[in-house]
Amino acid sequence: MDTAQTVAILLNFLREEIKKTGLHKAVLGLSGGIDSAVVCALCAGALGADNVRALCLPYKTSHPESEAHARLCAETYGVPYQVIEITPQIDAYFEHTEPDAPPLRRGNKMARERMAILYDHSAKLGGLVVGTSNKTELLLGYGTQHGDLASALNPIGDIYKTDIFALAGRLKVPEPIIKKTPSADLWAGQSDEAELGYTYARIDELLAELIDRRISERALKEKYDPVFVDKIITLVKKSQFKRRLPLIAKLSARTIDREFRYPRDWGV
Amino acid sequence: MDTAQTVAILLNFLREEIKKTGLHKAVLGLSGGIDSAVVCALCAGALGADNVRALCLPYKTSHPESEAHARLCAETYGVPYQVIEITPQIDAYFEHTEPDAPPLRRGNKMARERMAILYDHSAKLGGLVVGTSNKTELLLGYGTQHGDLASALNPIGDIYKTDIFALAGRLKVPEPIIKKTPSADLWAGQSDEAELGYTYARIDELLAELIDRRISERALKEKYDPVFVDKIITLVKKSQFKRRLPLIAKLSARTIDREFRYPRDWGV
Repeated sequence: MDTAQTVAILLNFLREEIKKTGLHKAVLGLSGGIDSAVVCALCAGALGADNVRALCLPYKTSHPESEAHARLCAETYGVPYQVIEITPQIDAYFEHTEPDAPPLRRGNKMARERMAILYDHSAKLGGLVVGTSNKTELLLGYGTQHGDLASALNPIGDIYKTDIFALAGRLKVPEPIIKKTPSADLWAGQSDEAELGYTYARIDELLAELIDRRISERALKEKYDPVFVDKIITLVKKSQFKRRLPLIAKLSARTIDREFRYPRDWGV
Repeated sequence: MDTAQTVAILLNFLREEIKKTGLHKAVLGLSGGIDSAVVCALCAGALGADNVRALCLPYKTSHPESEAHARLCAETYGVPYQVIEITPQIDAYFEHTEPDAPPLRRGNKMARERMAILYDHSAKLGGLVVGTSNKTELLLGYGTQHGDLASALNPIGDIYKTDIFALAGRLKVPEPIIKKTPSADLWAGQSDEAELGYTYARIDELLAELIDRRISERALKEKYDPVFVDKIITLVKKSQFKRRLPLIAKLSARTIDREFRYPRDWGV
């Protein structure tokens, strides 16, 4: 990846696409991780740091390091920054009505609470919610629908995790953020690669062959461990519902998301 | 509209599309209004009442009649039914951090909290969230993105509000639900038609000409009040962002939602 050219394209993308909506501000969630740090740097570069609002939205079990890294990131790029605890809302729901919910359901509820707060602040400020999901996560469905996967626009959704590291270097993301183990931090000790069962390096190599170069499943199984290929293809297929709009029962000649499908900047 | 044929199509849609995912249950929010009542009747008819879970999710300012009508609806179709107050979560957020937020922001936060609870229950039960937004609402953007507009599948998204009434009659939705004034009930005294400024009858007639019959703006302005036509076209255009996925910056040859775009049942 030519990181200089990529940065130029992405700065232009953010500037132009936000301008088209008549707005000029961006709101994003800072998790303390590398993806949101890269997006924060891009937003500050495209719009000016004062036009970006970064929110850190910890739950009581979030690692303290996550908040420290979120603050370090905001300070590095001079972006105004606010911490809002989501613990009271999350606990109000689970303690009263669903005390036995397992960690995955709790994590999804947290991701959706964060989405709702980001959208609320985007309404308050008159800005757009900028997404922070990379191509690897989007393809594997490693994220929460209507949670962290929700945004108005996403500058890094076509970049694999492995390339995010290169981009982070170019954008001078602070070392501790680049060096730490990738984690969704939805529960203690969570690690992306442990949860997925393979390293991002291996996954991204396979995804690039499967998705971008359209290599057949059969050919991939001759080159890579067939169990690994099966696992990744299954994840991509099973998560397809997260990458699409609600399926509407077709009754008329022009159904939304079928014949009636325009870009956002249609005629405006 | 041939209501008998429409019901047959929609029952088949719900049965087939849910079966394709390997699941056989549905979760929906009952607002006490006619749209969710129609969807409740359809889900019960398609899957059997015991495979449907209806949730009523009131806030402290919700009209007591809304909950009464939601219960009446669930009892009419024999659908298991639960009431969960969202007041503690909503107040925890606004009282502590955003006490001055206006009604629209509060209403959007409530809609997103309801979405998060419906998705949490869909995970708990192993079912799909079924949407209750009609075509009029979807085209006007009269709903909350990642809130009431979010679902896995939506049986009524291609049906104008005016036709929902006919469908409700056929499905024997209780009279008080059919007869009351349509309202999102996000604040006291809210009325859809007062808020939109025109009756659903007038709006739907225009939308059918504009969207389904592709009549030009110019021709429509000769037939209808040009101010009215402008208002409706502007609403459709300005809400386009609510009917699309996040816009991803294009960098590769296969970008998600561009070249990489499959139906959910792709190969599975």
